Amino acid sequence: MNTISLITDFGLSDNFAGVMKGVILNINPDAKIVDICHEVKPQDIFEAAFLLKGSFRYFPSGTVHLVVVDPGVGSERSKILVKTKKYFFVGPDNGVLSLALKEEPPIKIIEITNRKYFLRPVSDTFHGRDIFAPVAAYLSCGLDIDEFGNPIKSIQPLELPKIKKTEKSLSGEIIYIDRFGNLVSNIDQDTFKNFTKNKKFKIYIKDKIIDKLSHSYTEEHPLKPLAIMDSFHYLEIALNSGSAKDYLGINRAEKVVIQR
Amino acid sequence: MNTISLITDFGLSDNFAGVMKGVILNINPDAKIVDICHEVKPQDIFEAAFLLKGSFRYFPSGTVHLVVVDPGVGSERSKILVKTKKYFFVGPDNGVLSLALKEEPPIKIIEITNRKYFLRPVSDTFHGRDIFAPVAAYLSCGLDIDEFGNPIKSIQPLELPKIKKTEKSLSGEIIYIDRFGNLVSNIDQDTFKNFTKNKKFKIYIKDKIIDKLSHSYTEEHPLKPLAIMDSFHYLEIALNSGSAKDYLGINRAEKVVIQR
Amino acid sequence: MNTISLITDFGLSDNFAGVMKGVILNINPDAKIVDICHEVKPQDIFEAAFLLKGSFRYFPSGTVHLVVVDPGVGSERSKILVKTKKYFFVGPDNGVLSLALKEEPPIKIIEITNRKYFLRPVSDTFHGRDIFAPVAAYLSCGLDIDEFGNPIKSIQPLELPKIKKTEKSLSGEIIYIDRFGNLVSNIDQDTFKNFTKNKKFKIYIKDKIIDKLSHSYTEEHPLKPLAIMDSFHYLEIALNSGSAKDYLGINRAEKVVIQR
Repeated sequence: MNTISLITDFGLSDNFAGVMKGVILNINPDAKIVDICHEVKPQDIFEAAFLLKGSFRYFPSGTVHLVVVDPGVGSERSKILVKTKKYFFVGPDNGVLSLALKEEPPIKIIEITNRKYFLRPVSDTFHGRDIFAPVAAYLSCGLDIDEFGNPIKSIQPLELPKIKKTEKSLSGEIIYIDRFGNLVSNIDQDTFKNFTKNKKFKIYIKDKIIDKLSHSYTEEHPLKPLAIMDSFHYLEIALNSGSAKDYLGINRAEKVVIQR
Repeated sequence: MNTISLITDFGLSDNFAGVMKGVILNINPDAKIVDICHEVKPQDIFEAAFLLKGSFRYFPSGTVHLVVVDPGVGSERSKILVKTKKYFFVGPDNGVLSLALKEEPPIKIIEITNRKYFLRPVSDTFHGRDIFAPVAAYLSCGLDIDEFGNPIKSIQPLELPKIKKTEKSLSGEIIYIDRFGNLVSNIDQDTFKNFTKNKKFKIYIKDKIIDKLSHSYTEEHPLKPLAIMDSFHYLEIALNSGSAKDYLGINRAEKVVIQR
Repeated sequence: MNTISLITDFGLSDNFAGVMKGVILNINPDAKIVDICHEVKPQDIFEAAFLLKGSFRYFPSGTVHLVVVDPGVGSERSKILVKTKKYFFVGPDNGVLSLALKEEPPIKIIEITNRKYFLRPVSDTFHGRDIFAPVAAYLSCGLDIDEFGNPIKSIQPLELPKIKKTEKSLSGEIIYIDRFGNLVSNIDQDTFKNFTKNKKFKIYIKDKIIDKLSHSYTEEHPLKPLAIMDSFHYLEIALNSGSAKDYLGINRAEKVVIQR
């Protein structure tokens, strides 16, 4: 129970993430700290939630997943700690943990209030350092979760955009764009398969039509957009050796429609 | 005494930081290496010194803080190792350690000269790999600091820009801008409190006036700049859900004036 | 045999590198994972190969060097594991390991085929997570390399651009540009020394002429390009306190000519 994963929007050009690691090692010198991502777009709760959802299950049992994307720092938003069957999750109660917790149901939720485990004084602007990092560190030492505060019943929800389904079509949208310019939609593998049932289909995105699922980026010509089931089981629009984002001029929220 | 923290301007798009870590682990396989920041602006000694000052105290006792921002690499600038009550500091003697050492006074300063602890050959351009990383690694193994060279009396100083104080005003300037576009001034919490004494004040920055201290970024409307005491105890000008830097069009050295 | 180094083009703004680390720690909780570089330009096999070549030898004996720059993911390209005297190398068989293996000859090459050591299911787009990370992790646990597949004889080669040599001149080119804008050529120290033999020479790059080798960036005036032997033993064109790339307006493949 020594691994602590980090997702923040602190970036890597300041000392925020590094200072959190110092705080953690000061409390638990044996902690193994793993950066999942610090380059979440500033204050983009959805992006952090989506990255956590796609990452948490690959970590060792007992990992403390710490997420600090916290536009409400210093305000009255709660701070929470969640125990599930395999993991712990720590972060502000602003939805950032909710997509992961839909797949890994909470066994117990604690509102973090016990100042005994905070740095002192607690600053107005950096609860990552003063509250979340020490709580994650003490958790990784095996401290009982009831030590940190009182149980609460539920957390702030956050939803993936809904897929609209008709007899003839599925309508989704681009919800994430990765470094390569791959366009990840909210159409998950199960919904896609149930709808297309191994029969013919057409995917419409902007002015392009794609009529098959590829199994490698290299299957298509470099200037022909392709569809592929991505590694986190969502339908992705991509380009062989290039950026589909740049080629198609597409941003998050762009519509994707599948017709059968 | 196994933690080694790193601050460099090597960035993350080359292999410089990674190679330094290889060198360290080759000497001390038990070293815990923590990146504070590698994205210091190239050759910006002040920025590195400011980041170190705001970071070092959060690390475990015995941490070796290694800073490599070294525009004079290969020239006659000295290389130093400093022992304080809780920590060790290693870097070029160009001021980069001096802001931290004002808060954590040196017990002993060693000029690093003993080539026994360098990689061979020593290159002209990468003392981070050939000198500083191995010295930090041997230090983290518990080697006596007198092994590395001879004591010297003082190090190159570096100063924060001075605050100008009159009966009616404090004049400071922006000295650091973080990823979020928050504008950090050189007006520290103590100076600010002693001057304003919980009475009315006005903060002037560019064409804006701010007349109170916020305790959360969310206290103000998104387009109204706010003042807040930042987590490193300096007065910061910020914007709720946005970048004060971009909104105000401000860079480092911009004046900040407080009147009472 | 617990250190695993990583070179990828996954960047740091997604969760790809972090997820690979989770997978590794799930298999080998004692693994020490070191990032050499994740900011390889997308799908730039040469850049990754060059970074590996300049890095691998600084790591502890037994290190598993894992490189995932893999434009052919999901296609028929092989996946390989190479044992040398001191190290293990793991990656796609696309040339990315070949520059390092010219300096550290293979003792045995295995084509990775044993699905027992892969995550299941194997995705079409992320073999870094599903194949390479687990193989590297099992290797770092001491598993015999023959476990992973069958021996093969050779790997895909990749070459540095050749230096053209005449009686009077050496013609090379810029093959790598670092964060500081330093221009690294393919003219290695030995070739340079054998050609110039400590006598007079002139280096031509774009419209500039340089007639000596510096031993520190600070030896020249800030606006005068200088030549220096870089820390990886290649001739480098640089600028004191500035970016030679920006100042000269130069990109990769720009010619460098030395006349004696």
